[in-house]
Amino acid sequence: MTVDLRELAGQRLGRLREALAGAPFDAVILTTPESILYATGYRSVAGPLFRAHRMAALVTGDDCWLVCPAADTAPAADAGMPEDRLVPFGRFYFESALGSPLTDMSDRHPDLPAALATAVGFAGRGLRYGIEGLAADPLLGTAAGSSAGSPGRTSAEGSAGAAVDATQWMTALRGPKLPGEVALLRHAARLAEAGVNAALDAAGPGITEQELAGVVAATMVAEGGEPRFVVATTGPRSALADAHPTGRTWQPGELARFDVGCLYGGYYSDIGRTAVLGGPDHRQTSRYAAILDGLDEQIALAKPGVTAEELFEIAMETVRRGGIAPYRRQHCGHGIGLSIYEQPIIAPGTATALEEGMTFCFETPYYEIGWGGMMVEDTLVVTADGVDLFTHSPRALPVVPA
Amino acid sequence: MTVDLRELAGQRLGRLREALAGAPFDAVILTTPESILYATGYRSVAGPLFRAHRMAALVTGDDCWLVCPAADTAPAADAGMPEDRLVPFGRFYFESALGSPLTDMSDRHPDLPAALATAVGFAGRGLRYGIEGLAADPLLGTAAGSSAGSPGRTSAEGSAGAAVDATQWMTALRGPKLPGEVALLRHAARLAEAGVNAALDAAGPGITEQELAGVVAATMVAEGGEPRFVVATTGPRSALADAHPTGRTWQPGELARFDVGCLYGGYYSDIGRTAVLGGPDHRQTSRYAAILDGLDEQIALAKPGVTAEELFEIAMETVRRGGIAPYRRQHCGHGIGLSIYEQPIIAPGTATALEEGMTFCFETPYYEIGWGGMMVEDTLVVTADGVDLFTHSPRALPVVPA
Repeated sequence: MTVDLRELAGQRLGRLREALAGAPFDAVILTTPESILYATGYRSVAGPLFRAHRMAALVTGDDCWLVCPAADTAPAADAGMPEDRLVPFGRFYFESALGSPLTDMSDRHPDLPAALATAVGFAGRGLRYGIEGLAADPLLGTAAGSSAGSPGRTSAEGSAGAAVDATQWMTALRGPKLPGEVALLRHAARLAEAGVNAALDAAGPGITEQELAGVVAATMVAEGGEPRFVVATTGPRSALADAHPTGRTWQPGELARFDVGCLYGGYYSDIGRTAVLGGPDHRQTSRYAAILDGLDEQIALAKPGVTAEELFEIAMETVRRGGIAPYRRQHCGHGIGLSIYEQPIIAPGTATALEEGMTFCFETPYYEIGWGGMMVEDTLVVTADGVDLFTHSPRALPVVPA
Repeated sequence: MTVDLRELAGQRLGRLREALAGAPFDAVILTTPESILYATGYRSVAGPLFRAHRMAALVTGDDCWLVCPAADTAPAADAGMPEDRLVPFGRFYFESALGSPLTDMSDRHPDLPAALATAVGFAGRGLRYGIEGLAADPLLGTAAGSSAGSPGRTSAEGSAGAAVDATQWMTALRGPKLPGEVALLRHAARLAEAGVNAALDAAGPGITEQELAGVVAATMVAEGGEPRFVVATTGPRSALADAHPTGRTWQPGELARFDVGCLYGGYYSDIGRTAVLGGPDHRQTSRYAAILDGLDEQIALAKPGVTAEELFEIAMETVRRGGIAPYRRQHCGHGIGLSIYEQPIIAPGTATALEEGMTFCFETPYYEIGWGGMMVEDTLVVTADGVDLFTHSPRALPVVPA
């Protein structure tokens, strides 16, 4: 599978600029790693490792700056960011015998707000700024909000009055995916599915949760996936929702539940599968049929114009009609992309309508303490008149020979 | 390698309580995932996946509560937390035919601050609280600070006056490791080292960075490691510090630089290695000798009582004396444990002295744009009179046949 990541980043930036032309602001400041990756093509290795790691991207109609730690400047330049569009902060040293500007990235600003203020100065203090995450972190407005104090401008709301929150705007933009994004998501989902299939092929009486998870992870990495969560739980532990695998062995007659995902090219997968060791009993079979019917009804209904809450309602009704009671869920699926959960969530009260190109995980898990847990979670893209599934669950409960 | 993770969690909690007996507060509220894992033994699957995921642990001299999302309650109970010591917030449903209290964890509190206030009520509003992260997030004091308003108590500083920041206190506590922690860190480091060795064994002309990284990751997962970063960069890309591997092929005469780590039982590894494809040239050999000498001088000097800044100074002096100029670094190593970077950092101005049981990564990387990058990073534990290395770098620059 080959997608040119740099070309895709250019396409995403193009889509962002198209949207910016119709936005209630002139420029947008992105503050989540996923939106920054969307706009710049740069994914930081250090970002997920350090809670305090922060970056920002400032995008105008015809320019783009990356505000980042000094250590991120060289890999960001390698990923395609022009060196004169990097606005670094903090201390880190690159050397060069050739006079590279990257040798001068250290100690330019003490922290992100100071560097962001410089980037705002480059872009123009007179611009109206949209800021991702502004409502949750009003301090972000201080750097951009100084625009209101520039000559010839006044603001009734003071120095930060010119900035508005762009979180929802960016969320909506990232919903419908470009073909290259769909290709990466499809591949990530297939790596996860191949991992579960390989684990079931390797399974038998006495295999441990950790061994099952190991096969899943090995299958993902063999084709370039980066495992991000591998829930492989057996027997009563399958009821625990998200739990790390242990040394517990899978016993005949028990369920095993998989909820696994990896990154591929920065895009997430998240799929769920349930299996049983040896012939299933009636309760396992009937409950599996109920949750699968709920999922299948979602899949059958989904197309542009259908709302998230309609999908939620049909899933809940179908599972309950199948005999699982009580059946309570806060959601029955979610968007997926550069983030593992993206808007819209398939939840009550979410009136957002599906659009062509949106990518989702649909799921109807059931967790019963003391008995076990079951789920099938499939990933798909919304097409002009329905959906295209990335994953291909068996429609019967998979049985591993005991 | 077998360490009973639940037994180790009990030992860590015991050490925490011993320290609490001499602390300037009666109880501590922990707010980082790593410190919460330290005290409770619970590691959330969802935590690293969702930026907004939050938990807290409240530890007194004889009790411990976990404040967590409702979805985390069942896996936390499975990890050993008593159900009546879970204080949940948010919406998530577990069912049970047996009347498990876990069915009633949903919608108990709207958010973490509300749940934390309840936990403080359970522990006692009259207690003096230390709070990890209070200085960075003063709002945390609101939940615990209500203690100052309890009957019979007054505070000159108002309602949040009773709480003090416990960040440094917890950092110091987590520095010296228990034997079980050392065993897990040693194993994690060996998985990383085995990964690089396997990649070099598999390497030859035409192998790509992604293929090298794939072998590293596969080796880690084969023995239960969770890969967290796999930097495998070749030629000029080896100078980029932390960068994701690409499809670039390793060419004869070029350097490859590895900086890789995984989790094992919740503990991190982080090691670095450099190799060359085909016979090295003089500059590669001499610079490698310089950075290795800097590392080896740190290793030779390290023992209880030596300070972090002394280690930094000897590393910098040695590398510079070896002919690399300019050689600039913000640090030459760091503590490692449940976090990838722990205090003390081997940096100028850090007067913290090494103690027996502390675990470190020592490193002397050199990044020259246009030429390449080199590093050797070893991991070790401080012993009574020196150090015990977890990793065993070759002391000569590894050469892969071209």
